[in-house]
Amino acid sequence: MQKIRAVVFDAYGTLFDVYSVTARAEQLFPGKGEALALLWRERQIDYTRIRSMAAPDGAYYKPFWALTVDALRYAAERLQLLLDPALEAQLLKEYACLSAFPENLGALKRLRAAGLPLGILSNGNPQMLDISVKSAGMHGLFDHVLSVDAVRMYKTAPEAYALGPKAFGVPAGEILFVSSNGWDACGATWYGYTTFWINRAGHPAERLDVSPSGTGHDMNDLLEFVRTQGAAV
Amino acid sequence: MQKIRAVVFDAYGTLFDVYSVTARAEQLFPGKGEALALLWRERQIDYTRIRSMAAPDGAYYKPFWALTVDALRYAAERLQLLLDPALEAQLLKEYACLSAFPENLGALKRLRAAGLPLGILSNGNPQMLDISVKSAGMHGLFDHVLSVDAVRMYKTAPEAYALGPKAFGVPAGEILFVSSNGWDACGATWYGYTTFWINRAGHPAERLDVSPSGTGHDMNDLLEFVRTQGAAV
Repeated sequence: MQKIRAVVFDAYGTLFDVYSVTARAEQLFPGKGEALALLWRERQIDYTRIRSMAAPDGAYYKPFWALTVDALRYAAERLQLLLDPALEAQLLKEYACLSAFPENLGALKRLRAAGLPLGILSNGNPQMLDISVKSAGMHGLFDHVLSVDAVRMYKTAPEAYALGPKAFGVPAGEILFVSSNGWDACGATWYGYTTFWINRAGHPAERLDVSPSGTGHDMNDLLEFVRTQGAAV
Repeated sequence: MQKIRAVVFDAYGTLFDVYSVTARAEQLFPGKGEALALLWRERQIDYTRIRSMAAPDGAYYKPFWALTVDALRYAAERLQLLLDPALEAQLLKEYACLSAFPENLGALKRLRAAGLPLGILSNGNPQMLDISVKSAGMHGLFDHVLSVDAVRMYKTAPEAYALGPKAFGVPAGEILFVSSNGWDACGATWYGYTTFWINRAGHPAERLDVSPSGTGHDMNDLLEFVRTQGAAV
């Protein structure tokens, strides 16, 4: 088995807990908040894919924060919710300033203490990632905060996944890529990373004819997996 | 305004009414059928995109029918529905043998009578399209039944949309591309087609910074649009 020489994390839903967005949406639109948050997230990801697929040269690329605004407006309109600028600002602010999942900070520190360089590889654009990292109290923990903005192609494009090996100077197979999105863990596996799917929601495996190298429920399970790869964490 | 010299249709949801699938799902899983049909459709499209994006050379391409089976199994597992082979076969058979929307046959015949060559450009693989066309009583109406299977890239990839102009020998701008999927109408507009979005569900426009050339509620509205383009239908 290849020795892991760095760990790279997806950001939204993996490091940062997006649940507070749903809670705020429910507070602002009682009975409709969960539907709003779901459709918002769905369109946010759809728009990354539709735009990346339509132009391999990134011609229809738009930064993730702008897509996040587009997707929120679409979702509100479709659900016939009146999203005035003040309400929109509240929801977007919630998205900008997310919390970390409770076990994450401790787990990241243990990985660092074991001598593993850490990184983020996210669809998020650099400014939004910068705010999120600080907001979650993770400032200074990462050697590289990588955004697909550098290549104008969203995951699962190989150009996006290529950012990790390039930044760390390590082959993909010796980098552990961690995501709570099943499709992202699969995409990274295709690319050649060693991968770990944090299946927080207990969903079934995506039927994409590829399996992440490891799967668990939270970041503590990730530490256990890293130990099986020979690291002393 | 460019004169329309051919009309190309998306298939599933545009020509073929997929509602019967939801009805059958609801019959087989009372109270859960709509959720099953929605998640099935969502994952079906997700898988086309995840696979196409991950490999511009089509390395992770899998035919649409196989993805449709994968997506159904995922959706049933996630909703904790016991999908035994007999139930699965019933749902898949429903998907294979769809009806046409009621006004479609008449509208297609009027377009043909006006001298417009017609085509299909679908994510569906050729065998599945062949069965669907016959099942919906549309055999013989189309000059070209085009499947993205020929290029192993799903819409919104330019390779997929390129099939239309290539088959008809007409520039994209002189072909009217018709879809009931907003994202598909947007993708075709980016590619350069004249486009019409049949917004049957009355959804808001996708926020993709591009607008179809025309929009309407059904195929009769499409005929009206074609008249504005100078064709006598």
